[in-house]
Amino acid sequence: MQFNLDKSYEILERTPAVLKSLLKDLGDEWVMNNEGPETFSPFDVLGHLIHGEKTDWPDRIAMILEYGTSKTFVPYDRFAMYEASKGKNAEQLLNEFEAMRRKNMHWVRSLNLTETDFDKKGIHPNLGEVTLRQLISTWVIHDLTHIAQVARVMAKQYKEEMGPWIEFFRIMSF
Amino acid sequence: MQFNLDKSYEILERTPAVLKSLLKDLGDEWVMNNEGPETFSPFDVLGHLIHGEKTDWPDRIAMILEYGTSKTFVPYDRFAMYEASKGKNAEQLLNEFEAMRRKNMHWVRSLNLTETDFDKKGIHPNLGEVTLRQLISTWVIHDLTHIAQVARVMAKQYKEEMGPWIEFFRIMSF
Repeated sequence: MQFNLDKSYEILERTPAVLKSLLKDLGDEWVMNNEGPETFSPFDVLGHLIHGEKTDWPDRIAMILEYGTSKTFVPYDRFAMYEASKGKNAEQLLNEFEAMRRKNMHWVRSLNLTETDFDKKGIHPNLGEVTLRQLISTWVIHDLTHIAQVARVMAKQYKEEMGPWIEFFRIMSF
Repeated sequence: MQFNLDKSYEILERTPAVLKSLLKDLGDEWVMNNEGPETFSPFDVLGHLIHGEKTDWPDRIAMILEYGTSKTFVPYDRFAMYEASKGKNAEQLLNEFEAMRRKNMHWVRSLNLTETDFDKKGIHPNLGEVTLRQLISTWVIHDLTHIAQVARVMAKQYKEEMGPWIEFFRIMSF
């Protein structure tokens, strides 16, 4: 499947609703547990996604368009949300993510990006040269893989209760 | 996390809405592509889930309650949906799954299952003795892992477009 802006919007614009349908009004055991040390709970993922909307995706798009390869992206802080999410509940984070994403989609659409823009380059602090096409594709993939992660982390909470069926579920050992 | 019927309903009753929010009105490239030979597309997963509602989960619950270990479950046909889904579109399958699940949840709730019931046993054709607790836990996990699979399969459609970022996404090689 080739990159296409409309197909990317199809995913980016629905992610907040997907996460709401998955997590809204759920008990804490489904939302707050993780997969083990140094892994994210669904709650952590929400904070991580919000942090990305605030500091990462739109900033990097703007940097590619304004500065190209003359400036390097700010490294992404994958743990900033531990502090930022403190004292909040899942519902607040779901609403915050939805609002941030809506605002960012409005802004990205207002750029009227063209095929020429998609080839423009920026500098990633670890990966070197990347294109706007790759950045937006990765934004989409980042959404989808975190949705997959949330569902997997939730599934694992029942791992001890499924008995011998576990051998049919390769994903439970991922 | 320990098995609990209400916590299981929390997941089982929301799965149709989660899949709708993830797949409704999406282009075919997101819905019809899979991860390679002998893997499921999101469309295939919907058919697989419908088949489970029709022939597997409720039948096995009923069999444990009525026959215990004196009868063996009918083996699950993991490929029946290729025939059953023919000529249908994703929206029809989403609606069909929603209706079947609603009906099954209504039926399961009407059983007024108790702690004693959860320890009752049946015979799985490959796994041998399993309890009702394990069967319902596996139903929940089956939902969540297929949601994870759908999101992962969708993410993989953009794999070639993400460039060097792929090294940060372990899940893309699963």
